[in-house]
Amino acid sequence: MDRVSLSEFELIARYLSRPAAAERGDVVVGNGDDCAVLAPSPGHQLAISVDTSVVDVHFPHDAPPAAIGHRSLAVALSDLAAMGARARWCCMALTLPAANAEWLAAFAEGFRALAARSGCELIGGDVTRGPLTIGVTVHGELPAGQALRRSGARKGDLIAVTGYPGRAVAGLARWQRGERESGHPLLEAYLRPEPRLAAGEALRGLASSAIDISDGLLSDLRHVLMASGLGARIDIDALPLATPLRASLDLDEVREQVLNGGDDYELLVTLAASDLAEAQRRLAPLHLPLTPIGRIIEGEGIEGVPPRHLGRSGWDHFPEIAS
Amino acid sequence: MDRVSLSEFELIARYLSRPAAAERGDVVVGNGDDCAVLAPSPGHQLAISVDTSVVDVHFPHDAPPAAIGHRSLAVALSDLAAMGARARWCCMALTLPAANAEWLAAFAEGFRALAARSGCELIGGDVTRGPLTIGVTVHGELPAGQALRRSGARKGDLIAVTGYPGRAVAGLARWQRGERESGHPLLEAYLRPEPRLAAGEALRGLASSAIDISDGLLSDLRHVLMASGLGARIDIDALPLATPLRASLDLDEVREQVLNGGDDYELLVTLAASDLAEAQRRLAPLHLPLTPIGRIIEGEGIEGVPPRHLGRSGWDHFPEIAS
Repeated sequence: MDRVSLSEFELIARYLSRPAAAERGDVVVGNGDDCAVLAPSPGHQLAISVDTSVVDVHFPHDAPPAAIGHRSLAVALSDLAAMGARARWCCMALTLPAANAEWLAAFAEGFRALAARSGCELIGGDVTRGPLTIGVTVHGELPAGQALRRSGARKGDLIAVTGYPGRAVAGLARWQRGERESGHPLLEAYLRPEPRLAAGEALRGLASSAIDISDGLLSDLRHVLMASGLGARIDIDALPLATPLRASLDLDEVREQVLNGGDDYELLVTLAASDLAEAQRRLAPLHLPLTPIGRIIEGEGIEGVPPRHLGRSGWDHFPEIAS
Repeated sequence: MDRVSLSEFELIARYLSRPAAAERGDVVVGNGDDCAVLAPSPGHQLAISVDTSVVDVHFPHDAPPAAIGHRSLAVALSDLAAMGARARWCCMALTLPAANAEWLAAFAEGFRALAARSGCELIGGDVTRGPLTIGVTVHGELPAGQALRRSGARKGDLIAVTGYPGRAVAGLARWQRGERESGHPLLEAYLRPEPRLAAGEALRGLASSAIDISDGLLSDLRHVLMASGLGARIDIDALPLATPLRASLDLDEVREQVLNGGDDYELLVTLAASDLAEAQRRLAPLHLPLTPIGRIIEGEGIEGVPPRHLGRSGWDHFPEIAS
């Protein structure tokens, strides 16, 4: 059984416990009891997802600790975004090889900054010793019955994607080549992905289905098609191409990154063609483009994509069981 | 990045995903989307806790897989019991060194059996590869404002404990000596602790404070005293002594196990002396004794316990941050 010194406990408590100043009316019991106790919003449903980030599986061991903190929360929040839920509360199960004050302070700062910006209050957690692993459970709220489902795509719907997918995998490749240019947009896209929470909420009631493309655009599109019992035709020339990708590679390689790069946390949605302009208008204040890239069609599978891009299907790590 | 075969994915999905037959009205979206979506009960608050069980820290690597599954959920449910909450939903973040079909089936069976018996539906999770670690987030519900807090003890209250603490640490000692007698009550107490959910609910509105004694009776009593700003006088002769403990050790050793053994998941509560009979009456259908062992007094610290039992304070592993 592990025994740790009081100073280590104090360190962890200092960096990760809920600051008293952050008290919100919906947090009835915060730190210091067996459970956190929360007051859900009347008329709402809960959206819950859990994501585990493991060192050298989901992020490089030498990534900046603030980025590890940010990223471990971002990948979980992205699941709330894909349902159209508003982020409310999170728990962290942290496994640490050792309590290093400097590392832990930067990690906590990265986590806390995104949590605060997302309205997602850290309400509980535990800490154990072992290989660096961050398990995050996020809780969001939705007006009852308004969740964006994977299964809602309809024949004739447009397929559209937020932002510029493909940047994260290009950023990871740069990191693995040893590039460490602070603030480079591709490295940032990998290290500090931005969960599309505001976009998910804005598209509620408009999109017929939604998913985040953490596994890769085509791979996650397949999940929507399977759940909806339909097929898709992609317009390969319509893919949004981020400027730094176009500048650095040939078109085929760029398309491969856009279609099959993992670790993007953009949203893929389907919606009626007549709703596209309204959807784009709602995302305009977020400075987030929404690009139509194809149509939902009868049948199954994906048309319009050259076979060389269909062989891979994005990250094929252990998939989630349910959420 | 880890890549696993489809067969491994199917294995995990088969054992851990929510069976369609288990559909409940409060689970709006179960498997197969970015989040689970749940309908909370009107007029209720949510109680949430997270517990991580790590191989060879929280359980022996050679423990029966069904016991590991049971135990990893039980330790989390115990926190709901200590708040008086009713168990509703859980998520599992499972880290596995490899996908062994036989082990996984037994593990899942142990987890599922307790989940079903507790009304705590598995609604999400993820699986990653690494040293065996089970992170469980549990969600319970409470009528608004009725949580049992650590901070509610009042001067003059009785201190009472459910069941027979000390058995788990005695069982662990037996396991570590190589004893493997299936069904031995002390081994069972360690391997398959029973979270006192029904007792917690039954004591709501009656107990002034509650905590589970996972860290040891004295250690967790200190948490209540600190939170309530009071002290305690223990009647050392009133401690409930399990029969198999009395049979095997001298009285001093038994008392040490009862007072400072970790891994018990009994409840320690405080309540008005005039409410004791009613509390015992409510627990009688559960066949669970509730034994008064002392009083809450002015001041701080614990009186009535011989100094030889005060030196240790129960398990001093990394404590939880908040829940």
